[in-house]
Amino acid sequence: MKNFTCVQDLGDIQSALKEAFEIKKDRFQYAELGKNKTLMMIFFNSSLRTRLSTQKAALNLGMNVIVLDIAQGAWKLETERGVIMDGDKPEHLLEAIPVMGCYCDIIGVRSFARFENRDDDYNEVIINQFIQHSGRPVFSMEAATRHPLQSFADLITIEEYKKTARPKVVMTWAPHPRPLPQAVPNSFAEWMNVTDYEFVITHPEGYELAPEFVGNARVEYDQMEAFKDADFIYAKSWGSYAADTYGQVLSKDRNWTVGEKQMAVTNNAYFMHCLPVRRNMIVADEVIESPQSIVIQEAANREISATVVLKKMLESLK
Amino acid sequence: MKNFTCVQDLGDIQSALKEAFEIKKDRFQYAELGKNKTLMMIFFNSSLRTRLSTQKAALNLGMNVIVLDIAQGAWKLETERGVIMDGDKPEHLLEAIPVMGCYCDIIGVRSFARFENRDDDYNEVIINQFIQHSGRPVFSMEAATRHPLQSFADLITIEEYKKTARPKVVMTWAPHPRPLPQAVPNSFAEWMNVTDYEFVITHPEGYELAPEFVGNARVEYDQMEAFKDADFIYAKSWGSYAADTYGQVLSKDRNWTVGEKQMAVTNNAYFMHCLPVRRNMIVADEVIESPQSIVIQEAANREISATVVLKKMLESLK
Amino acid sequence: MKNFTCVQDLGDIQSALKEAFEIKKDRFQYAELGKNKTLMMIFFNSSLRTRLSTQKAALNLGMNVIVLDIAQGAWKLETERGVIMDGDKPEHLLEAIPVMGCYCDIIGVRSFARFENRDDDYNEVIINQFIQHSGRPVFSMEAATRHPLQSFADLITIEEYKKTARPKVVMTWAPHPRPLPQAVPNSFAEWMNVTDYEFVITHPEGYELAPEFVGNARVEYDQMEAFKDADFIYAKSWGSYAADTYGQVLSKDRNWTVGEKQMAVTNNAYFMHCLPVRRNMIVADEVIESPQSIVIQEAANREISATVVLKKMLESLK
Repeated sequence: MKNFTCVQDLGDIQSALKEAFEIKKDRFQYAELGKNKTLMMIFFNSSLRTRLSTQKAALNLGMNVIVLDIAQGAWKLETERGVIMDGDKPEHLLEAIPVMGCYCDIIGVRSFARFENRDDDYNEVIINQFIQHSGRPVFSMEAATRHPLQSFADLITIEEYKKTARPKVVMTWAPHPRPLPQAVPNSFAEWMNVTDYEFVITHPEGYELAPEFVGNARVEYDQMEAFKDADFIYAKSWGSYAADTYGQVLSKDRNWTVGEKQMAVTNNAYFMHCLPVRRNMIVADEVIESPQSIVIQEAANREISATVVLKKMLESLK
Repeated sequence: MKNFTCVQDLGDIQSALKEAFEIKKDRFQYAELGKNKTLMMIFFNSSLRTRLSTQKAALNLGMNVIVLDIAQGAWKLETERGVIMDGDKPEHLLEAIPVMGCYCDIIGVRSFARFENRDDDYNEVIINQFIQHSGRPVFSMEAATRHPLQSFADLITIEEYKKTARPKVVMTWAPHPRPLPQAVPNSFAEWMNVTDYEFVITHPEGYELAPEFVGNARVEYDQMEAFKDADFIYAKSWGSYAADTYGQVLSKDRNWTVGEKQMAVTNNAYFMHCLPVRRNMIVADEVIESPQSIVIQEAANREISATVVLKKMLESLK
Repeated sequence: MKNFTCVQDLGDIQSALKEAFEIKKDRFQYAELGKNKTLMMIFFNSSLRTRLSTQKAALNLGMNVIVLDIAQGAWKLETERGVIMDGDKPEHLLEAIPVMGCYCDIIGVRSFARFENRDDDYNEVIINQFIQHSGRPVFSMEAATRHPLQSFADLITIEEYKKTARPKVVMTWAPHPRPLPQAVPNSFAEWMNVTDYEFVITHPEGYELAPEFVGNARVEYDQMEAFKDADFIYAKSWGSYAADTYGQVLSKDRNWTVGEKQMAVTNNAYFMHCLPVRRNMIVADEVIESPQSIVIQEAANREISATVVLKKMLESLK
């Protein structure tokens, strides 16, 4: 595996899951693999879970870690040719990115959608520049349109908790005061679509995700209908993808907040969320505190998904 | 030792001191103990000595270290149940803290008193939340009411320099432009009270510390009287503890600044301070630059106290 | 080698170069040398290349690394004696610096010229205070007047690419919107002056560097004349050194921008710059993107120069 930005990069999903469960039994069994290898983690956006779990994964594998925080906007890179750089951009990406590649073996990049221009976001300009110019294998620590380390951890969690071979998994939109990127729901849908689970997406009209991520999922606008007999509820808020309302909040309807009423029609479903979660907007206290809530276990699996991905990248270096 | 927030957690003090002196002779002798163990250091307040010495201690023991800086106020955690989280708090502590515990083996927390509400400060809300919800052993890197790694280093230093079995140790208040937390003087008193030293506290009227920390110490309002025949002078400024003036500066009287006049009545006492120290407010240049000043040796012992504490916590993990 | 702030500290330059090329073949061959040794990197100014390459160098040698970011101005140290410290400076350097030395084995310091007072800058007040008071060997990660890790990397790069025993090396001033410190050009001149290269400095009148750095270099005010038959072009902007205009921008004349016109009169010269570089101010797109541009290779050698310097410092610790 050279780069890791989406589910296809991981190769055979069943074999990756097998590796994940093997690593979870002893996460230090490959502690020699990363010896004298350096991971550079570059954050254009802030991070708690991704920062900690990826760093831990690299340490599991015996790697050295260098963390670089680049406040959004603070590090303005020129991207055009021909510009006389006498303004506020002190460096061109064509120099900056190869230099970062000089001092490490693998690069992780976090860079969110900016919600300024849909094409720019969906072209994944920043992470693609690292892939093209750094000279190193690159993995996503959440990019504009996907968050594959999260989705892989989600998949591991479902595999751990599922009680039937083909569980019903429902991803539901939920209200939030601010418009959030589509990276997590896009990516979750993409990963669910390579399993043989029954996968349903539910959201108010107007919140349709990009068709290439929805894939073969069933879209159901009636949340209660969608929840019926579900085995897993995956809640997430996101801003509009539609061309004319891109990045906007279209609804804050708290009827969509996942509460006991909705959970009652499920098949005693597990509740999942990538965190951080706003209680009583996304989910009611009673649901997230119930025994069916597996949000902490899901977060803990972030270490496992990152360890598998870094292990595969290290093996490809040799 | 599971958690470490006060002197009682350390167990037998003489045995802990013996361990400290043994480690000081070769601080890398337990470099295998922390292999594949990760320390997470979480700073709600800034830090120089504590950050560096604790990190060094963890490295002495072969641990991995992850540092998380959380600017005071920037990371607003909801703590109440039932709140509709549509405001400026993006996460509830009941999710945030267990997640941090997922990616490490031991957690260090620094969180100062806020001087807004005495009960909140003295209930140690933040560090107790980590103890309750993180699922990991937790130690204080200075909490609202105590700074035990400092006090342990102070005790080690006194043991190194004392010339009699039962030295006279005097803790004196001193002026400062801003009100400082009581964590250092509280904690120092608590640790002195488990020794058989002669221990005296001196300060202007109104600066009384909480009775549970003063314990059996003699309180003397006349600084010159207190200093007579002292073997160690421990200077520190603090804000008022009294209910009606909590967190205020009651005096900036520079007659309390430790100068040659005061030191002259001591038994050629050593001068100690936890640093940073404001010269000619807390202590005169002549005193802190004299051969009797052991403030740097005291700071160096921060590495030793942290190494002992982390060693004991690592041993309890097994 | 105790401290490293200038070329003289490195000892015999040919032997240091030999070591550099040996390390470049296998940068992990001394991975045992730094075991249980801690590098503390202290940044008073921001850094990308120096931060990453020095950290990587320390990891190559098996050292532990602690990074301390001190925003310029945020950490105000009192430097005078006798001052009543009741203002905005919470600590005296006479305490702060020895304490930092307590927790590490080697200290790296970055502290730029402030362009407020030429004597203060050229006396190298900050790094000299660390040398005097820290109790540890200290190396420069760019100080007010020199950037020796950069210059050593530059020298390694020239040795790798030179086609004749005595290449012609031309350092040229170039325009920039802001006045930049003289550390890089001073230091490059100092290092070139210990080789037997033909070394020429070219800049507009008024931009003369300090005579002690210019040394025996030929100074040529006509850039085209200077470039004739050059084997290496080393471009850099700097602010005025003259007493009456110290730290000012005297010219933004883009006729000095290194373009194809100037490169055409060279001996197919290689183009070098320490980065970050402003395109079409310092150098035209066509030149920096040409096969003759070796700016990335030059940056990569920063890891090598830092590894050699830290290796020598570690050897001196024993």
